[in-house]
Amino acid sequence: MERSFKLPMSTFVGLNEKTLPLKEIIKRLEDAYCRSIGVEFMFINSLEQCNWIRQKFETPGIMAMNQQDKRLLLARLTRSHGFEGFLARKFSSEKRFGLEGCEILIPAMKQVIDRSTSLGVESFVMGMPHRGRLNVLSNVCRKPLEHIFTQFAGLDTGDEGSGDVKYHLGTYQERLNRVTNKNIRLAIVANPSHLEAVDPVVQGKTRAEQFYHGDSEGNKVLSILLHGDAAFSGQGIVYETFHLSELPEYTTHGTIHIVVNNQIGFTTDPRMSRSSPYCTDVARVVNAPIFHVNADDPEAVMHVCNVASDWRHTFHKDVVIDLVCYRRNGHNEIDEPMFTQPLMYNRIRKLKPVLELYAEKLIKEGVVTAEEVKEVKDKYEKILEEAFTSAKSETRVFNKHWIDSPWSGFFEGKDPLKATPTGIHEDTITHICKRFASAPPNASDFVIHRGLQRILSSRMEMIQARTVDWAMGEAVAFGSLLKEGIHVRLSGQDVERGTFSHRHHILHHQKMTNDTPVRR
Amino acid sequence: MERSFKLPMSTFVGLNEKTLPLKEIIKRLEDAYCRSIGVEFMFINSLEQCNWIRQKFETPGIMAMNQQDKRLLLARLTRSHGFEGFLARKFSSEKRFGLEGCEILIPAMKQVIDRSTSLGVESFVMGMPHRGRLNVLSNVCRKPLEHIFTQFAGLDTGDEGSGDVKYHLGTYQERLNRVTNKNIRLAIVANPSHLEAVDPVVQGKTRAEQFYHGDSEGNKVLSILLHGDAAFSGQGIVYETFHLSELPEYTTHGTIHIVVNNQIGFTTDPRMSRSSPYCTDVARVVNAPIFHVNADDPEAVMHVCNVASDWRHTFHKDVVIDLVCYRRNGHNEIDEPMFTQPLMYNRIRKLKPVLELYAEKLIKEGVVTAEEVKEVKDKYEKILEEAFTSAKSETRVFNKHWIDSPWSGFFEGKDPLKATPTGIHEDTITHICKRFASAPPNASDFVIHRGLQRILSSRMEMIQARTVDWAMGEAVAFGSLLKEGIHVRLSGQDVERGTFSHRHHILHHQKMTNDTPVRR
Repeated sequence: MERSFKLPMSTFVGLNEKTLPLKEIIKRLEDAYCRSIGVEFMFINSLEQCNWIRQKFETPGIMAMNQQDKRLLLARLTRSHGFEGFLARKFSSEKRFGLEGCEILIPAMKQVIDRSTSLGVESFVMGMPHRGRLNVLSNVCRKPLEHIFTQFAGLDTGDEGSGDVKYHLGTYQERLNRVTNKNIRLAIVANPSHLEAVDPVVQGKTRAEQFYHGDSEGNKVLSILLHGDAAFSGQGIVYETFHLSELPEYTTHGTIHIVVNNQIGFTTDPRMSRSSPYCTDVARVVNAPIFHVNADDPEAVMHVCNVASDWRHTFHKDVVIDLVCYRRNGHNEIDEPMFTQPLMYNRIRKLKPVLELYAEKLIKEGVVTAEEVKEVKDKYEKILEEAFTSAKSETRVFNKHWIDSPWSGFFEGKDPLKATPTGIHEDTITHICKRFASAPPNASDFVIHRGLQRILSSRMEMIQARTVDWAMGEAVAFGSLLKEGIHVRLSGQDVERGTFSHRHHILHHQKMTNDTPVRR
Repeated sequence: MERSFKLPMSTFVGLNEKTLPLKEIIKRLEDAYCRSIGVEFMFINSLEQCNWIRQKFETPGIMAMNQQDKRLLLARLTRSHGFEGFLARKFSSEKRFGLEGCEILIPAMKQVIDRSTSLGVESFVMGMPHRGRLNVLSNVCRKPLEHIFTQFAGLDTGDEGSGDVKYHLGTYQERLNRVTNKNIRLAIVANPSHLEAVDPVVQGKTRAEQFYHGDSEGNKVLSILLHGDAAFSGQGIVYETFHLSELPEYTTHGTIHIVVNNQIGFTTDPRMSRSSPYCTDVARVVNAPIFHVNADDPEAVMHVCNVASDWRHTFHKDVVIDLVCYRRNGHNEIDEPMFTQPLMYNRIRKLKPVLELYAEKLIKEGVVTAEEVKEVKDKYEKILEEAFTSAKSETRVFNKHWIDSPWSGFFEGKDPLKATPTGIHEDTITHICKRFASAPPNASDFVIHRGLQRILSSRMEMIQARTVDWAMGEAVAFGSLLKEGIHVRLSGQDVERGTFSHRHHILHHQKMTNDTPVRR
């Protein structure tokens, strides 16, 4: 008979059991931590958060998925796989930065969106590099296939704005989320070839959307950032963006990061491009949990996507999903990866695509039949072919289809020479100047620094002399916009006081112990 | 009687004792971890390294300092303190970005240099921001005081190069290290106002010096980087530089980082500028140990400096010393910190300078008398006054005194119109081209990719047609420099193959299992 052990308080591997055989304890822990998922969280400086995570992985059976969800996952994988294959056949000599080797990205993003939508999110602001971009635009955002296909045809643009390559532009789509039956907004922000430059842009756009929707907790608007492994570990802007994540004036209340971890950067191996074991180690800085997951295990990926969405909803902190995958082709479809990584690519060539692996698994489990698999595939092929045919009749492409916000009015050909009058009344100027030259009103006990009192007095003298300096000119500009109901946001270090101590938009009480600055 | 406990294997608080009373165990652990030093290392993924660190802090009595070292430390603090006070009196209306609040930096750097010199280091390449820079130039590098004082006088420059403010320029000094009686080289690299931009420059200069001195293990040349807390946590280039630290082609075999942690960035509080508890959290990414130390406890700082130097010598990895201090004045001496941080600066004003604290401690311990303290102070004052007088008679400043390398020949007024002939013989060109068009020699079993074989063949055809493309032109340029014995270093991702797959300076064996690339 096997000896049983009391389960320690610090583990969640027991359900209602108080004791378990050692063998069973080990098996359950191995199921949680030694299969397709590597959970990094022990550096997080919060016991509550650590326990929350452990419970999400250690609880027996927590990763189980029902048949309906498995079929949905297979269908999504079919689309992800089919999209790249179709483009490869139709535009075989074109670069497209395909997803091959990380087809799971599409179901992963859709899972994050489904789960987050069910938790109340209504809008998703996303940034991503080239790889898989067209697939995401089509299969995650449901940008019409015709818009994508016509971009390969080299047509003239039919509206304002200069054309740019298709894997730089963005999209904005409103669509019904079928899982939750709610209308959601999906935006992919345009990005340059400078990978990761889009990160702070996405954060800014998200913050702005949260502001204008009164979403001060970030419950309605969520940012998702996609990264390649080399750029994620290599670029300082990633680190800088993480440090924005919990600043009161910059937070977007948690970003979900998804790394397409190809284990290569262009032609460079990780050992030649970073000094830490994982490409995700930057996230340790802000104590964000990191979920490494084998991208060839679709169900494990879905579990991780659920946990990441729940984490963000619960703690409003950043989280990282590391899709450990491979890149089936070169840096793009025209590059030859065998030049520089012959052994690695010899092995990659022998790997079955994840769709094939998963279809085999589900057939074996009896969840689907081979016929059903083919049916799903054929159905999507038909959609692709129809769109391809319809795209052929297009003669122009429209840049307005590729922007990340519904900029109504922007493309309607306003007369740029017809300027709107922006002058303001002298009384308004004087009013703003006087406020800029005064201590906070209704605060008779507000102790102001003597030096600041002098500055305020000299401002008052300027008003009497009907003159302004640079700082007061700026204050009139900001103040008049505010009076017209336009939100003004100054961003950066020292903006409250001004780098040259000229602004003083925030005054500090010289005695108050909680040192709450007073805004005027 | 107190009950004794067996000491666990994982602690170093016991000397020869096998058991100790609990009270004593707790006391010893508190001495190690609950006084002036906060050691962060439990995230390091090496038991050997973790144990090494524990032993350096837990061993009872390991921090004890002898009387001679205490007096030396006091003398160094006296100079650090005296230098700022002297400049403040003589140039009271000038910015100097003084060290006040972190005077311990000078003894700390000198301790790192002493200790590392005794471990074999002969050359120190240093980068630092504005704060304390003049003090470091004078008291660490022994740049003549006259050179510093004349920079305040606004004199014309007497040689080539444009003048720039004194806290941007560097220095190069060779001097005898008195502790080890060895000659050492000290360089401070010039830096712009863009803080931390100097970090990779210092690494590059260090790597170059190691290369030219055949110092492939980094035993002779050491880089030291100084940082302010806000820039260290705020700038992505810090993160990027950390990721260079262990790359085979970029490592300088361990950098000692010293943070002057003022707990403020210009006028911005940490809670508004970073999303992690410590300003040093970036170092966790590369598993570097972090030693937080109260800058008002000089002996604790010296211990940490010794451990950091030993760590770098032992493991050739980066290490961070976090001098937790304060900034007695504003961002510079003209700024008013009470405008924005009134409560903090009210408290700072009440703090005794560290020199006063430490002198009191040593007097109380009987290590020095009040008279001796005054004597050391007066002696340095006299040196300062003499240099000040002598600087008055200077009429010009020389930029050559402010460069970070002894660029002999550079300032001797060469005729820029007299170009050295750089042409090379046609045979040399043909020879280089042929090598560039060939597979590795003496490697008959080297399996080359078919596509590459085609590229090499087309290069051979070019040679026969007496024509070159861009890639071959570049190869002739690099090759002819190499033949003249000049080191050529191409830096960056994809440089071996070339971003446009045009270069192929490194060829990869298509079968060899360890995939060692072959250099031609």
